Amino acid sequence: MNETTKVTGEATGVETGYTERRELPILRSDGTAGAGMVRKDVPFSPAEYERRLTKTRHAMERAGIEVLCVTDPANIAWLTGYDGWSFYVHQGVVIFLDQHPWWWGRRQDVNGALRTVWMEDSRVHGYADNFVQSTIRHPMQDLAVNLIAMGVGTKRIGVEMENYYYSAKAHAVLEAALPDAQLVDATALVNWCRAIKSDEELVFMRKAARISEKIVDGLLERVEPGIPKNLIVAEILRDAVVGVDDIWGDYASIVPLLPSGSDAAAPHLTWDGRPFATGEATFFEIAGCYRRYHTPFCRTIFLGEPSDILKRAEEALVEGLEAGLEAARAGNRACDVANALAEPLERAQIDRAARCGYPIGLSYPPDWGERTISLRSEDTTVLEPGMTFHFMPGLWMSDWGLEITESILIREDGAAECLCNRPRKMFVKS
Amino acid sequence: MNETTKVTGEATGVETGYTERRELPILRSDGTAGAGMVRKDVPFSPAEYERRLTKTRHAMERAGIEVLCVTDPANIAWLTGYDGWSFYVHQGVVIFLDQHPWWWGRRQDVNGALRTVWMEDSRVHGYADNFVQSTIRHPMQDLAVNLIAMGVGTKRIGVEMENYYYSAKAHAVLEAALPDAQLVDATALVNWCRAIKSDEELVFMRKAARISEKIVDGLLERVEPGIPKNLIVAEILRDAVVGVDDIWGDYASIVPLLPSGSDAAAPHLTWDGRPFATGEATFFEIAGCYRRYHTPFCRTIFLGEPSDILKRAEEALVEGLEAGLEAARAGNRACDVANALAEPLERAQIDRAARCGYPIGLSYPPDWGERTISLRSEDTTVLEPGMTFHFMPGLWMSDWGLEITESILIREDGAAECLCNRPRKMFVKS
Repeated sequence: MNETTKVTGEATGVETGYTERRELPILRSDGTAGAGMVRKDVPFSPAEYERRLTKTRHAMERAGIEVLCVTDPANIAWLTGYDGWSFYVHQGVVIFLDQHPWWWGRRQDVNGALRTVWMEDSRVHGYADNFVQSTIRHPMQDLAVNLIAMGVGTKRIGVEMENYYYSAKAHAVLEAALPDAQLVDATALVNWCRAIKSDEELVFMRKAARISEKIVDGLLERVEPGIPKNLIVAEILRDAVVGVDDIWGDYASIVPLLPSGSDAAAPHLTWDGRPFATGEATFFEIAGCYRRYHTPFCRTIFLGEPSDILKRAEEALVEGLEAGLEAARAGNRACDVANALAEPLERAQIDRAARCGYPIGLSYPPDWGERTISLRSEDTTVLEPGMTFHFMPGLWMSDWGLEITESILIREDGAAECLCNRPRKMFVKS
Repeated sequence: MNETTKVTGEATGVETGYTERRELPILRSDGTAGAGMVRKDVPFSPAEYERRLTKTRHAMERAGIEVLCVTDPANIAWLTGYDGWSFYVHQGVVIFLDQHPWWWGRRQDVNGALRTVWMEDSRVHGYADNFVQSTIRHPMQDLAVNLIAMGVGTKRIGVEMENYYYSAKAHAVLEAALPDAQLVDATALVNWCRAIKSDEELVFMRKAARISEKIVDGLLERVEPGIPKNLIVAEILRDAVVGVDDIWGDYASIVPLLPSGSDAAAPHLTWDGRPFATGEATFFEIAGCYRRYHTPFCRTIFLGEPSDILKRAEEALVEGLEAGLEAARAGNRACDVANALAEPLERAQIDRAARCGYPIGLSYPPDWGERTISLRSEDTTVLEPGMTFHFMPGLWMSDWGLEITESILIREDGAAECLCNRPRKMFVKS
């Protein structure tokens, strides 16, 4: 007997996923089938997956793509529900215009797929373990054989050329093994479909925001001169995964970043065991994460008395953020946000060349951005209600750095909504 | 004035890295040069980097490669010292036969490179921010322009075709932008050079092992029926980063994995907020990490009274591990370890198809393996002193899973040394 339970985002009443206890056909390690009573846990409602699939198929049709091979783990999860740390081997989901998605991965991960995807079990396929990191076989050969067997070996097939998990070799092997297909670049096709968040997704992002707030609260309490960096990171990670109330924390796609003083000029160095020091600003770049949905949030803490340079930078940055939030409204463009931010920074003679934000939501390491829109002067994408961004105007100067950021939601009307709610300033502990 | 301090692995007396306080030319956000007093922190001795570079050049010469573009972050770090969470954008290091390595990455990360690489500052180059996730520009165009300017645009250039961070698109763009070069596949060329660890590297791995032991000790103390999974993960992460004594913990390249009961059949599902339950086995797949060096270690905890099936599996697995450790000696082959393990498992009628181990050491997400040797029946690589493996015969059956593993060092003589020291068994808490 199967038993299905709907899950509701408690604060909002929005129906989200469902869990199901049922007899699952399970693949044994030798490839034969067994069975067992297991819990299938799908994060979103059937209607939500239907919406996503329909949107993706329309995008495929517009691009003249008949079959789409999705290898970005976030795109796989968004389309099917699949969630596991298995993206270090080749895996994917194949999207057709007229049949259900087909999950494909290492045989060892089939049991994970059976527990997490919404499709029927027959739409899950595993390849043998001796394809893994082999010098004589490649998993893409198995994918090609299957595509040909499904009768789509002569189609126009989209592949995500610019993706961490679709290597140059994978492409070369797939191309050679599908001599009659036409492989076309479908980079970011699904990512663009993800730009506008549904109510169900926003339930998750708001939960992640509560975790982000908790992390920042802990930092403000704990950071003191003399405390080694790694001890603070240990508490960040603990807070992030303990979560808030019944919101359990998932792993963020980037580790906490917290460079201090002149090292804050190097924004992507990770921590070590050196202590926080008086007279230094440290920015904390973190994100709460709930079921793979991220709400990044950065704040800066100064220990001691900040210089006038830093105080003026803070003032200009907060002014720029507020101008940017005003500009971040439906109908405006991505560049309008960047330009609104730039003005007070320029007045303060702060030279800032990097983009100031990117879309956020579902993601896997190594990045929590969606890699579509960039908040920068050359990006004219029109903002739409439901889009979410990390508005991230980090200042990484020659020998100091400052980050005060907001994760934002574009609303039907008015300025953007900030998903986290903590004072927008550099915190000074003297 | 520059000031250099050598760093010594305290327990062993082996000299490891060095730190240096000096005036560094720093790139401002607008690309102009500034200067500041910063600490340069290089994890290994100059002699160690010299050894690595020489070994890599010999491998290049054997493969007929004149210039090598390295994009695997672990290979970049191994060759140069560079360490930062910046691998989500395109970056690399170019190895020449007759000049120092040349670091190439996003301009924003130049300051990170200046602080972490052993080469002189002029060997660090940043590309402009509008190459990042652009639909009209690609960072590989910048790399190609630079290679041509350095006079190597007509050479035989090695690229790592099978790598998370060398996408199909990156290769296509580089190929198009270097029409006179011959690009050849150099996948794992550097990874193979990493297989035998130096004494300096072993100092780091032994430190990581102490962190692994601490994590497992914490698990044995804390795991109880009714405790939600995420709370245990929170403590694992905290222990991992707090470290042991003065050994501060770095982030591991894979998050902790701890599936229970029938979910243990799906080894790569990550945690949620459900509680541990009586009557279930949970395996814990973790690794302590010190300055990017990993020593993975897995143990299983059973809550309640294990079934005879599980107890027999444990017995066979431990017997197989011990046979494998005996076989893991210099002069034997990778397959000898796998075959020694297989025998007692087969006698117990446990069917196990996956490989049972892989080389370990320096790594970045999403994997802590080195992706060269596999401990499996078809791999005849001869084992050499200084090689390190995660001997990892996980049992992922149809509705249960069991992991008891060892990180091992191949010695000059005798059976392999286990880097961690905890009882080799399934722990039962009744």
